[in-house]
Amino acid sequence: MADRPDIPAGAPEEEDEFGLPPRLVEEALEAVTAGDAARLHARLDPLHPADVADLLEQIEGRDRRALLALWRGGVDGDVLSELDESLREEVIEGLAPGELESAVRDLETDDVVDLVEDLDAEGQEAVLGALAAADRIAVEKALAWPEHSAGRLMQAEVVRAPEHWTVGEAIDFLRSGVRLPDQFYHVVLVDPRLKPVGYVTLGRILSAPRGARLRGMAEDSFRTFHVEDGAEDVARAFARYHLISAPVVDDDDRLVGVVTIDDAVTVLDEEHEEDLLRLAGVGEESLLDPVLATARARIPWLVANLGTAGLAALVIAQFAGTIEALVALAVLMPIVASMGGNAGTQSLTVAVRALATRALTRSNAGRVIRREALVGLLNGVALAVLLGGATALLFSPAIGAVIAAALVVNLFVAALAGVLVPMLLERLGVDPALASGTFVTTVTDVVGFFAFLGLATVVLL
Amino acid sequence: MADRPDIPAGAPEEEDEFGLPPRLVEEALEAVTAGDAARLHARLDPLHPADVADLLEQIEGRDRRALLALWRGGVDGDVLSELDESLREEVIEGLAPGELESAVRDLETDDVVDLVEDLDAEGQEAVLGALAAADRIAVEKALAWPEHSAGRLMQAEVVRAPEHWTVGEAIDFLRSGVRLPDQFYHVVLVDPRLKPVGYVTLGRILSAPRGARLRGMAEDSFRTFHVEDGAEDVARAFARYHLISAPVVDDDDRLVGVVTIDDAVTVLDEEHEEDLLRLAGVGEESLLDPVLATARARIPWLVANLGTAGLAALVIAQFAGTIEALVALAVLMPIVASMGGNAGTQSLTVAVRALATRALTRSNAGRVIRREALVGLLNGVALAVLLGGATALLFSPAIGAVIAAALVVNLFVAALAGVLVPMLLERLGVDPALASGTFVTTVTDVVGFFAFLGLATVVLL
Repeated sequence: MADRPDIPAGAPEEEDEFGLPPRLVEEALEAVTAGDAARLHARLDPLHPADVADLLEQIEGRDRRALLALWRGGVDGDVLSELDESLREEVIEGLAPGELESAVRDLETDDVVDLVEDLDAEGQEAVLGALAAADRIAVEKALAWPEHSAGRLMQAEVVRAPEHWTVGEAIDFLRSGVRLPDQFYHVVLVDPRLKPVGYVTLGRILSAPRGARLRGMAEDSFRTFHVEDGAEDVARAFARYHLISAPVVDDDDRLVGVVTIDDAVTVLDEEHEEDLLRLAGVGEESLLDPVLATARARIPWLVANLGTAGLAALVIAQFAGTIEALVALAVLMPIVASMGGNAGTQSLTVAVRALATRALTRSNAGRVIRREALVGLLNGVALAVLLGGATALLFSPAIGAVIAAALVVNLFVAALAGVLVPMLLERLGVDPALASGTFVTTVTDVVGFFAFLGLATVVLL
Repeated sequence: MADRPDIPAGAPEEEDEFGLPPRLVEEALEAVTAGDAARLHARLDPLHPADVADLLEQIEGRDRRALLALWRGGVDGDVLSELDESLREEVIEGLAPGELESAVRDLETDDVVDLVEDLDAEGQEAVLGALAAADRIAVEKALAWPEHSAGRLMQAEVVRAPEHWTVGEAIDFLRSGVRLPDQFYHVVLVDPRLKPVGYVTLGRILSAPRGARLRGMAEDSFRTFHVEDGAEDVARAFARYHLISAPVVDDDDRLVGVVTIDDAVTVLDEEHEEDLLRLAGVGEESLLDPVLATARARIPWLVANLGTAGLAALVIAQFAGTIEALVALAVLMPIVASMGGNAGTQSLTVAVRALATRALTRSNAGRVIRREALVGLLNGVALAVLLGGATALLFSPAIGAVIAAALVVNLFVAALAGVLVPMLLERLGVDPALASGTFVTTVTDVVGFFAFLGLATVVLL
């Protein structure tokens, strides 16, 4: 960034274009150690709430408590919103009651909902109790909607206007001192039953004459969401259709709120993280989770993999006699399994991503499957030539031929499994990112060992 | 979506909240087969450009050409923008010259830049030649900035105002018939040297009295980007700081453009895809790439893995005598390697994601490494009990003890490698998502086989 008046100048070695200046963490901790509240305020007060939250997340629990005790009044609602969920309760508990109240009073209702939805009952009550009565009702209403729904995501504060209004009427209304959301990008046009019928961008209102009718200036493309639509679907629609804000309606098609792009971006980012971690067999986890919780979250995947590996061992055990007769097979067999695992992961990742972005659908499934199978076959043959040749030279031509054939078979099966398994899981309503990896490597291990050792038994013994 | 006047009613079995109604592809192709242009227009004209692009991507080349020939005048600039890069040239070449001209004239300059930057010289010239002179100059200027920079991402059309203006002056200016961008969310305040000094949201301008000074209504948080800042850093800053638009300045701090959230969302989505695919050893690829190109793009990773697997085989070969004496080792050894690979991938994915989001920094690196090592040790011990016990029952207590010890060693090393390898690559300026996987599985294969077979040689023979 060329200019950021709200961020102290970074250290000279700084390379990042955003984020905490690297020295700031040290400087803040030095101020805490020195008990110098003024210096701490001077360092932290100018920071963006996202950077404050980042700093609190990067330091250890002991330092964090000392810092918060010294930095009285520093934590506002935005900092709480930005904090990782695993730290929120700790920080909220550390606040004086008055502090919590002033912290949350300035937040939009959607941010309060986001803040409290994962707190325990005690923490929720503390935050809700700090709100003004009207806001508290709005938040409780939002919390009544299902988790991960548009209802949880939206803000209840909507700027709306009757569809027959003129630009002048709208401007007069906006200037009349009504409470407006911090950020809004459209005026939603509603019919007398409060059903949204279109929206007008603020840019158009500002550039049109006072007499112009809002109805005539509505955007061509307009879509609303139902309050129980899934948050991820809403977020994907924002990305796909380049939406900035979109009205949310209830069962009676009445306007009840508006989702804005910043909330959609947060959801998309979380979804990205979830896909990535799930594909790697890691549940939702944060760097801040304690060791024991992390270990516990990861072990189911490892146990599942233990089962998979056990199955592969069972296949190998069938061929113990063959291996005893020709120990070179034991040396080479992991290569076949490992190559299959790799090729399967390639197909699988492409398929999982394509399913998530709806690029892989029923209309083109056949073509995609054919494509993956062909790619698997081609690369199988190419690698078989390489590995078969090397094996022929180092061991024997017969073993080379066997490993080449096994590799072609395994890469072909890997490619097919890589695309078919996620499609099947999607059809069954299971997140393909969650379970595909284990299934696909089971297939490639079993097929890899079986094809190689089976062929070897038939051909070489 | 509860209400989408711009999308025909979905088929009853439709589950998705957005995207092409499943039957629409069939219906469009039926219209093409029947040569019924009117029916085709009736089906496609109401669609959002993103959905049209999706449809064109989902059908085969032959059908696509027939559809485009029949749907004359249907493809506009927005459809071209939404199209996957691999299809743009084909579609652009199929357009009549007049069609291309009217298609691109309505686009903002940033969309034109995005459209042409990956075209070949001929395609670029065709699009640039279709632009009005002023737009052409703006696009050529943007293309002079480095790829993946803020300069490429921004639109040159900026709504700016001298900082001393009042709300009334701004509104009069906006109403004066100047050419305004399709979408804008702020008025950027500039000093007489055109340096941006703040910005005001349109909502504030609309709700303030005509006499109010813009300066007094500027947002607290304001950041600008340099025109050569990396697009990914800019996009991450948008997500982190909840930006909607941000001014871009040149070396003299002069305002040259503005980046808006929709462009940032596109970049974030592409980055996410890149991370996911790179972690799986797949380069940038699209479902539309031909088979041969896909196979060629994936094979370097498979060859790298062949080297890795060869190294593991070399380790096993050192213990051929041990395996010959005790063939059960060949049955069990892939389990140790595979569990290590899994645990390593878990740590590695968490580390790669944390590096990308700047959650893992120098300030907390030590803590994160300790945490991963402990998690690896804990899960290693837990799984060792399981696997060691089962092996003791099925084979012998001595083999059970050996495999248990080898598993603890390998999971500990896997966890360490999973976090250290990506950190090292990041320090060396290599994308950790790109290369970590191969390194980490090499480590876990080699250590897994060596620990198990080595211990077995010492203890069992």
